[in-house]
Amino acid sequence: MQTLIQSVLTLQHNRLQTVDVLLDDEQIHTIAPAGTLSPLPQQQVISGQDKLLLPGFVNGHTHSSQVWQRGLIPQLPLELWLANVFDSTPQQVEQFYWGAVSTAVDTLLSGGTCLMDHAYLIPGQERETIDALVRGYQDVGIRAVIAPLIQDLPFTAGLPSGCLLPQSSSPRSASQWLDLMEILIAEFHDPDCGIYIGLGPTGFHRCSDELLQGCAELSDRHQLCYHTHLLETRAQHQLAQERYGISAVEHLYQLGCLGSRTSLAHGVWIDDTDIELLASTGATLVHNPVSNLRLGSGLAPVLKGLQAGLNISFGCDGAASNDAQNLLEVIKLGTILHTVSDPDYKNWLTPEQALQMATVGGAKGVNLSDRTGSLTPGMDADLVLYNLNHPSLLPRTNPLQLLVLGRPTEVVESVWVKGKPIVKQGQMMTIDIHTLHNALRHHAVEISLFSPQHRAVESHYHQVMLH
Amino acid sequence: MQTLIQSVLTLQHNRLQTVDVLLDDEQIHTIAPAGTLSPLPQQQVISGQDKLLLPGFVNGHTHSSQVWQRGLIPQLPLELWLANVFDSTPQQVEQFYWGAVSTAVDTLLSGGTCLMDHAYLIPGQERETIDALVRGYQDVGIRAVIAPLIQDLPFTAGLPSGCLLPQSSSPRSASQWLDLMEILIAEFHDPDCGIYIGLGPTGFHRCSDELLQGCAELSDRHQLCYHTHLLETRAQHQLAQERYGISAVEHLYQLGCLGSRTSLAHGVWIDDTDIELLASTGATLVHNPVSNLRLGSGLAPVLKGLQAGLNISFGCDGAASNDAQNLLEVIKLGTILHTVSDPDYKNWLTPEQALQMATVGGAKGVNLSDRTGSLTPGMDADLVLYNLNHPSLLPRTNPLQLLVLGRPTEVVESVWVKGKPIVKQGQMMTIDIHTLHNALRHHAVEISLFSPQHRAVESHYHQVMLH
Repeated sequence: MQTLIQSVLTLQHNRLQTVDVLLDDEQIHTIAPAGTLSPLPQQQVISGQDKLLLPGFVNGHTHSSQVWQRGLIPQLPLELWLANVFDSTPQQVEQFYWGAVSTAVDTLLSGGTCLMDHAYLIPGQERETIDALVRGYQDVGIRAVIAPLIQDLPFTAGLPSGCLLPQSSSPRSASQWLDLMEILIAEFHDPDCGIYIGLGPTGFHRCSDELLQGCAELSDRHQLCYHTHLLETRAQHQLAQERYGISAVEHLYQLGCLGSRTSLAHGVWIDDTDIELLASTGATLVHNPVSNLRLGSGLAPVLKGLQAGLNISFGCDGAASNDAQNLLEVIKLGTILHTVSDPDYKNWLTPEQALQMATVGGAKGVNLSDRTGSLTPGMDADLVLYNLNHPSLLPRTNPLQLLVLGRPTEVVESVWVKGKPIVKQGQMMTIDIHTLHNALRHHAVEISLFSPQHRAVESHYHQVMLH
Repeated sequence: MQTLIQSVLTLQHNRLQTVDVLLDDEQIHTIAPAGTLSPLPQQQVISGQDKLLLPGFVNGHTHSSQVWQRGLIPQLPLELWLANVFDSTPQQVEQFYWGAVSTAVDTLLSGGTCLMDHAYLIPGQERETIDALVRGYQDVGIRAVIAPLIQDLPFTAGLPSGCLLPQSSSPRSASQWLDLMEILIAEFHDPDCGIYIGLGPTGFHRCSDELLQGCAELSDRHQLCYHTHLLETRAQHQLAQERYGISAVEHLYQLGCLGSRTSLAHGVWIDDTDIELLASTGATLVHNPVSNLRLGSGLAPVLKGLQAGLNISFGCDGAASNDAQNLLEVIKLGTILHTVSDPDYKNWLTPEQALQMATVGGAKGVNLSDRTGSLTPGMDADLVLYNLNHPSLLPRTNPLQLLVLGRPTEVVESVWVKGKPIVKQGQMMTIDIHTLHNALRHHAVEISLFSPQHRAVESHYHQVMLH
């Protein structure tokens, strides 16, 4: 069935314009001047009055299972925080299902239609974990890229001078992980259903060159997104110097891991040379401003990156390091945070630029530029209709500025993913939201903070990073 | 009538505890271990199950009439932004009424029970402006301190080397402003009704010493709060050097303007010596993190200030520089922002500290420590009850961390101000919210951006600050 949205405000060519938009099954069919498309029989007609229609945002980086750890782990630097994340990661397949559902709902209700789940795996139940995530995303109806988090070096190897700490063994070798990834890709990668598998080596800090390179080879062969953490913390920067003697970005480049299908989460500690190199490869940097402040990771050089032509998108990061999964919050902070790094206001991000990063930039970061992120005929209808009459978007000034710089709440009226209505009148159409909330209310997470592992790492961290 | 809240989670002595709380008319009567207070006839009984009870926050700095300019003015440094604020300030008394109502509602629904309105005045209708604000706050039932924004130097005098720009004349001399303030205090200062007048000279940058000092004298004589902007921007820092040759803090100190009733908005550019001096006087710094990023003012040295014993509270600042008036958003950003200035996580703010700043710290900043900001018998019942079953506060982990570090939405279930229920089941009890929203939807603001004044200031700003 076709859907006609009449006289709706949109952002076209960086300007607010009122247009008619016709959706045809899965795609955007026509965009025409307001009042020029007349409804035909059997078309569903939606009034665009007091509404704003934007392409769906892409959440470029999250870890859906951390929903269970929201509000759990105190503010600590990544390296100490991680010890606690591992110790409290859910271990039931069903929790991964609900984590995916919850993350998908939060994404949709904050303007997103697509997410990158850099997914934890239950050891020994990797296939079942991915199966649960896929079920969750398909039940909700969001577009999802799932990049299983894999690593073949132990946790402590990811710390500078970490070789001094007791080492645990890795559950699998690089080649075993790569074999598993082949299986997961074959079983779960399903673009027609809006489910994509990506290659997700944790980061150089906990991956051998063999694993990093093997993932790049699989990404090339299957034309899949390559997603990895990059220089999130000062400690990782220091580790790269210890281990490689060159920048981690240069190292990844030499291994052949950087290209237009690569997206790199964080990049807080990249320098000017790294920025140039990243930009030249066509890779995407995913900026996670809330998480970066929450973990004290620092300020990613976003303005410099954009000036160098680097594609930058936004990510929420997991709910253990950003205790909300709200894209509008992340976009707001990402828009205003970088004023502290540059006093010249001509360089500051505008709401229009931020929306471009969240949509077009986000789609490129998950290797889906040809499908989503743009209100253009022929693209999939991944669209969000905002209610400009909501009190949090009053008074009537600049709707884009209110959306990006305000604190919009419950403003998402309708969402379509591949043309299918997923949200109507602010309500989820595909799942029973109460079942989700009951699951969150009653499932328990094993809380185990400040374990012996944490204490060992803390003592090491103090010595290496704070003295 | 007495109200008994049974078995409710609270923060007592920096620890979560479940207690019974009895409210007696205007005040907190008793706090007892959970289950020990039995309901008496004629007591209203409220179940505290799955609820969190906290003292109301204080919004330590805002400008209520800027509600009309929300989403209007682009991201610009304060000095250029201000030219546009002046050019688009509402000029109708009724708009000031609705600005107060809107700000009060946003404050209450984000956990606040008291605010400091550093209030714009309609020239020639100063009395009528304050009257409208008082009506607005009383109709809603919030506790409000109104400090009229007064200045006797022209706008351009507030810019470094601003003497080079054309000067407009000030509408009143210092002594005329002080006479007016006497009249406003006599007519409107009414602690029994929860309405307080404060002295609000705009800031050293646009006030003569005579006005700054005269306000201090009135503050002493009437025991009122003294509230002023302080070193919000680098330009103001430069101006203080030009004009006084010493720090603006030292200058205010020498004029006798700093004391325990003084609260200073921003203080982004105070140095270590200023911090020591401010702490020694017992003054309060009001931290406005969202506004500071939105205007690119910089990072206030909050961690250093707290370590020096300086009282610091939170402010939203006006809606033209923080396009939302949500205290929970401000508290979150204020809690995580300062990790970028100090890598040692032992110094980072905890949710408990942030809540202390927003309540006890906020009350001290508006000279109301003896009345509000604390869940203690004998204090006024300015209390907020949060619904921990709301999806944005799930799953069940640490409720304080979810409240401060999450993105809570519609979690305020009940609010009492001086014992009077103002919000019940998330709904305003005192005013018709639809009338407010209709007013916001239909009143127009005269939009006049980038006037000749703006362009003159911009050219000057570029020359003085960016070259």
